[in-house]
Amino acid sequence: MGRYEKIDLPVSNIRRYLEPGPIVLVTSSFSKTRNIMTMGWHTVMEFTPSLVGCVIAAGNHSFELVRRSGECVINLPTTKLTDQVVAIGNTSGAEIDKFATFALTPQKAQLVGAPLIRECHANFECKLADDTLVDKYNFFIFEVVKAHVAPAPQHPRTLHYTGDGVFMVAGKIISRRSHFRPELLSD
Amino acid sequence: MGRYEKIDLPVSNIRRYLEPGPIVLVTSSFSKTRNIMTMGWHTVMEFTPSLVGCVIAAGNHSFELVRRSGECVINLPTTKLTDQVVAIGNTSGAEIDKFATFALTPQKAQLVGAPLIRECHANFECKLADDTLVDKYNFFIFEVVKAHVAPAPQHPRTLHYTGDGVFMVAGKIISRRSHFRPELLSD
Repeated sequence: MGRYEKIDLPVSNIRRYLEPGPIVLVTSSFSKTRNIMTMGWHTVMEFTPSLVGCVIAAGNHSFELVRRSGECVINLPTTKLTDQVVAIGNTSGAEIDKFATFALTPQKAQLVGAPLIRECHANFECKLADDTLVDKYNFFIFEVVKAHVAPAPQHPRTLHYTGDGVFMVAGKIISRRSHFRPELLSD
Repeated sequence: MGRYEKIDLPVSNIRRYLEPGPIVLVTSSFSKTRNIMTMGWHTVMEFTPSLVGCVIAAGNHSFELVRRSGECVINLPTTKLTDQVVAIGNTSGAEIDKFATFALTPQKAQLVGAPLIRECHANFECKLADDTLVDKYNFFIFEVVKAHVAPAPQHPRTLHYTGDGVFMVAGKIISRRSHFRPELLSD
């Protein structure tokens, strides 16, 4: 499997990767326990601070790790990791070490305790910013405090879950940049 | 432009359309004013009740219409409506009637006052379920109370925004159904 060398990305720019709706792998760690889960229910909420809201169901082994540590890493897999994404989503970290079982490489993060997954295209280090809706909806709001991305390919072939075991794979890229108001563009 | 004939979809199944992260068109109506906005920041939050969380920035003309009516419709456009999606996102409903300007057909909803967009592949009628985080994050939680979808194509060519005027178009479909635990599948 590929192990991407990554560069820093300004955290305000992560919408480029998360807004199109990819399935992601969330890593967490608490008191010498670590885990990986698949997650499809997330949304960008703000650029600065860089906020991402997501649902981590209370039944997941990761729920307590995230809640107690107040941290996680959102890792962006591509189609090269399709088998791992499916396997991670269909097993429990209460029973196996998913890094070892699925041959994924944990890498030390800079600002949080949870590990990055080296084989993923991008890694977003997150700190819990707001837990107001955790009890009622399992909805966590994280601030992305550090972002690492592979410089190529520019548009990774991400996986987008549609339920029932079926994924849509990211397709072609089209630009309508010339039709946008300047203030809606990055530069 | 196509005008899809639609069938009812159980509201608990809308994840199939929204979880992959498409850009959507949100329609709203209050006191004889109506509007359409583009929205890319949304996530499924629960199956039953069918909850969707989304960010509608306070600067949008639609913000007050949604907040005051407590209702909206989330409409799912495909690549056939790319020009309209871009134009709607780059104009303000304070200045123009977007239905008339962009030749979109408003259609009466069943359970809410906001209109459906007939040219969209799917329409989800929504009622505001929780406004706890509206003041702080412009984050609305809606309950989808009625869902209308075109029966074909089964996997619509949706648009997925990556920022900076660039969209990813939904690509090929791959099934890993045989690798899923039965309780994670629909039937």
